[in-house]
Amino acid sequence: MALRQRLHKVIFESDTRAGKRFDVFLLWIILFSVLIVMLDSVAEIGQRYSDIFFVTEWVLTVIFSIEYGLRIWISPRRLKYLFSFWGFIDLLSILPSYLSLVLAGYHYMLVVRIFRLLRVFRILKLARFNTEAQILIEALRASVYKISIFFMAVLAIVTFMGTTIYVVEGGREGFSSIPQSIYWAIVTVTTVGYGDIVPHTVMGKFLSSIAMITGYVFIAVPTGIVTLEISRSALKKKECSACNSKNEIAANYCAQCGRLMG
Amino acid sequence: MALRQRLHKVIFESDTRAGKRFDVFLLWIILFSVLIVMLDSVAEIGQRYSDIFFVTEWVLTVIFSIEYGLRIWISPRRLKYLFSFWGFIDLLSILPSYLSLVLAGYHYMLVVRIFRLLRVFRILKLARFNTEAQILIEALRASVYKISIFFMAVLAIVTFMGTTIYVVEGGREGFSSIPQSIYWAIVTVTTVGYGDIVPHTVMGKFLSSIAMITGYVFIAVPTGIVTLEISRSALKKKECSACNSKNEIAANYCAQCGRLMG
Amino acid sequence: MALRQRLHKVIFESDTRAGKRFDVFLLWIILFSVLIVMLDSVAEIGQRYSDIFFVTEWVLTVIFSIEYGLRIWISPRRLKYLFSFWGFIDLLSILPSYLSLVLAGYHYMLVVRIFRLLRVFRILKLARFNTEAQILIEALRASVYKISIFFMAVLAIVTFMGTTIYVVEGGREGFSSIPQSIYWAIVTVTTVGYGDIVPHTVMGKFLSSIAMITGYVFIAVPTGIVTLEISRSALKKKECSACNSKNEIAANYCAQCGRLMG
Amino acid sequence: MALRQRLHKVIFESDTRAGKRFDVFLLWIILFSVLIVMLDSVAEIGQRYSDIFFVTEWVLTVIFSIEYGLRIWISPRRLKYLFSFWGFIDLLSILPSYLSLVLAGYHYMLVVRIFRLLRVFRILKLARFNTEAQILIEALRASVYKISIFFMAVLAIVTFMGTTIYVVEGGREGFSSIPQSIYWAIVTVTTVGYGDIVPHTVMGKFLSSIAMITGYVFIAVPTGIVTLEISRSALKKKECSACNSKNEIAANYCAQCGRLMG
Repeated sequence: MALRQRLHKVIFESDTRAGKRFDVFLLWIILFSVLIVMLDSVAEIGQRYSDIFFVTEWVLTVIFSIEYGLRIWISPRRLKYLFSFWGFIDLLSILPSYLSLVLAGYHYMLVVRIFRLLRVFRILKLARFNTEAQILIEALRASVYKISIFFMAVLAIVTFMGTTIYVVEGGREGFSSIPQSIYWAIVTVTTVGYGDIVPHTVMGKFLSSIAMITGYVFIAVPTGIVTLEISRSALKKKECSACNSKNEIAANYCAQCGRLMG
Repeated sequence: MALRQRLHKVIFESDTRAGKRFDVFLLWIILFSVLIVMLDSVAEIGQRYSDIFFVTEWVLTVIFSIEYGLRIWISPRRLKYLFSFWGFIDLLSILPSYLSLVLAGYHYMLVVRIFRLLRVFRILKLARFNTEAQILIEALRASVYKISIFFMAVLAIVTFMGTTIYVVEGGREGFSSIPQSIYWAIVTVTTVGYGDIVPHTVMGKFLSSIAMITGYVFIAVPTGIVTLEISRSALKKKECSACNSKNEIAANYCAQCGRLMG
Repeated sequence: MALRQRLHKVIFESDTRAGKRFDVFLLWIILFSVLIVMLDSVAEIGQRYSDIFFVTEWVLTVIFSIEYGLRIWISPRRLKYLFSFWGFIDLLSILPSYLSLVLAGYHYMLVVRIFRLLRVFRILKLARFNTEAQILIEALRASVYKISIFFMAVLAIVTFMGTTIYVVEGGREGFSSIPQSIYWAIVTVTTVGYGDIVPHTVMGKFLSSIAMITGYVFIAVPTGIVTLEISRSALKKKECSACNSKNEIAANYCAQCGRLMG
Repeated sequence: MALRQRLHKVIFESDTRAGKRFDVFLLWIILFSVLIVMLDSVAEIGQRYSDIFFVTEWVLTVIFSIEYGLRIWISPRRLKYLFSFWGFIDLLSILPSYLSLVLAGYHYMLVVRIFRLLRVFRILKLARFNTEAQILIEALRASVYKISIFFMAVLAIVTFMGTTIYVVEGGREGFSSIPQSIYWAIVTVTTVGYGDIVPHTVMGKFLSSIAMITGYVFIAVPTGIVTLEISRSALKKKECSACNSKNEIAANYCAQCGRLMG
């Protein structure tokens, strides 16, 4: 029982020295395993060092499996952990390797191991990394509704532009269907501009120009929204109980009346 | 008469349960019909399932026609509805299908049905979706004048850049005329960068670099404008009970009439 | 003398009805003449309608010449007008046509006529168009120093990146020299991304990725600068002489102490 | 000894007239030498004028060597200068030329001379250039932590997107490995859009569209962060004379110690 408690401190918490070391160790192991997945996908490297990758992968899988087993063992509420988000991600980290023993179609399935990367965020979360991240997340959460309205407006604009250019270019090269033309409109409005689909008629070029300038100006909208919310969540004020004026969150005394703040 | 009133509640309003259901039903029908228009334009799909699409389209047209008829019937002021924006959009949703019976040149005309998508916004409008959208729309409306000044400045810059590069590149590949070169300038200044027209001379590349950096910095202008206006319209004001003018949330006295505020 | 004064009102001012009409007339003439210059440059159109363009151009030149003569005649200080910015632009609007009679090398020289477009801005200036434009111009002027620092930083970054990739890609396709590689760096950092020069080595792609993300984040700097300055110049406050608190520029009474403001 | 002090004033300081002249002279020499390095890399120019470039380079190297020698001689703490950042850059400016005498592999090594450009910033620094630059640097420093969080989020997004499209496009043209696909994701999310790697399947295009819109909206985050910090560092604070903490310009009492401010 004492062992379980000590392991809990090491694995799930990060206040102790051992807990921090475990986190850092896991962080590097995860990043290393993600790197392996990536390199394995490069044909020349994957084929030449296939043996090394195979062994490394199994060593990593065993390490992650032990960790997974320990996490289940020391969890006070095992089922809750198993069906939690992180429990699912932990399982996803080892499952593909085991399944590859049973099933064929080896190659692509193993790509799922890339989700191990998500586990990095759990470690960062434990490491009180999020004092500042909280501001950003809060700002994004606060602007989610406005941004989704913006997103819908963009979808509508892109649909109309795509359809219009589909008619204008008359199904020429690239603009072979409405969905394809909408894809072009997205490429254009977001200012990505691959250049794989490009207008050829004068009218098409005129329309593209409008789409580009629209996109160029429209980017101002999410920026404005997020800027506002970041300012809001970063500049959160507390109110003085005496004169009700707003003070910076770090203030000890009210900047207007000089009284000590609660 | 009672039926007309009840139908009015269902079709034009969305406070009642039936009204909400009708809106949601219509929303899906519209999105579905737009999807059909899109898929129909894909050559392989459109040809293989042309029968299914034909039938589906007519079923949808009949549904929309009945809806259109009902809207006319229950409107207190029929002519006003018929010549309103939404009345026009509703007609546009069904007209192409009927016209296709009479006229040839079937294919492209049917694309007009994509305007059905606009009807989605009426439904969202009814659903009190716009508490937050209002802020964005207000911000965009407030910045329309400044942005149109910006827009004119961009047009002038793009015209001069296009003309200059037309001379510099001497009518080479792509830069065959001034309008074409202006198209290039727009592609470049907005940072879209298709790459379909690209400078080949040293001088042309130097000029392009200036155009790119100009565009890269200039995007700051609409962003600054919209950010300002979003902040303004989001950081709401309180109204003076005496003169109805808007005051800053922290004001003690109305800035227009000087009266103490509640 | 009375004629000169009346003409001055019509041509240089825009308060009277005739002055406004003259401005609007000139505005359309200028835009029309710019359109002619553009269309003339399109090979197919320019050749087919060369006669029409030739006549139109001379009609416009005569109109502008008369206007130029009148402006000189009615100017209280003729030399000052002749050597002013607008005097120079006015001359530039008619000179190319006359020079084309004397000189060969007709084609490209006539492109200078595009500078007539600048004259549009004089008309807009007279028309008190600039109440809001002033805010933008002031904001840009206020941020000019900061933006030029940013600009120098971008130039340095782009030079180092270009040089590095020149070494990394080893003079391969596109990266044939340092200036060429700097051009690539500008195309990349500004997120234009033509795709005419593209890295081929792994190291080059890695470096490009850094360049892209740098550019993606760096765009925040001019945006931040301009947003700040637009806010500043738009939200300029006036101070209450009684309590020194800042009030909105349109306020009649101080929002803090309720006193009437100067 | 007096000579050393006078030289110190000229070379290291810029308050005196001679000091300013020396700075300006050095500034032009440096920019000129960087230009030489660039032009030298252009094959046609570098080969034709190789003799001129060779001589010019050695003249410049001698000048920089003398300057380097003088800087060492007049430094009060010679070792400190030698191992300082600027001491290292100064050495890097002359070393490549000398090494080229000894070693082969001439060409690419000489590119290191481009780092001379960094010396420009020392001159600008001395010239009290940084009153405004300080605001930008301070703003960037203040936002470094938030931006690095953003950067990590972008890396994670780009990794997942790259991996997903690698599976979706099934190793087709361009998407040959996960790192390659991540490179594509970076090109897309940053809205650079070279167009060298482009999705070909319907699913791939759908995914790309999501990547583009994500990138289009995500650019709002660093912009919001930097805008906030630039506002903060530009809207300067006044310091409390008692506890030296910074207070808002409008504060009557110090927010940290509660004392009345001057």
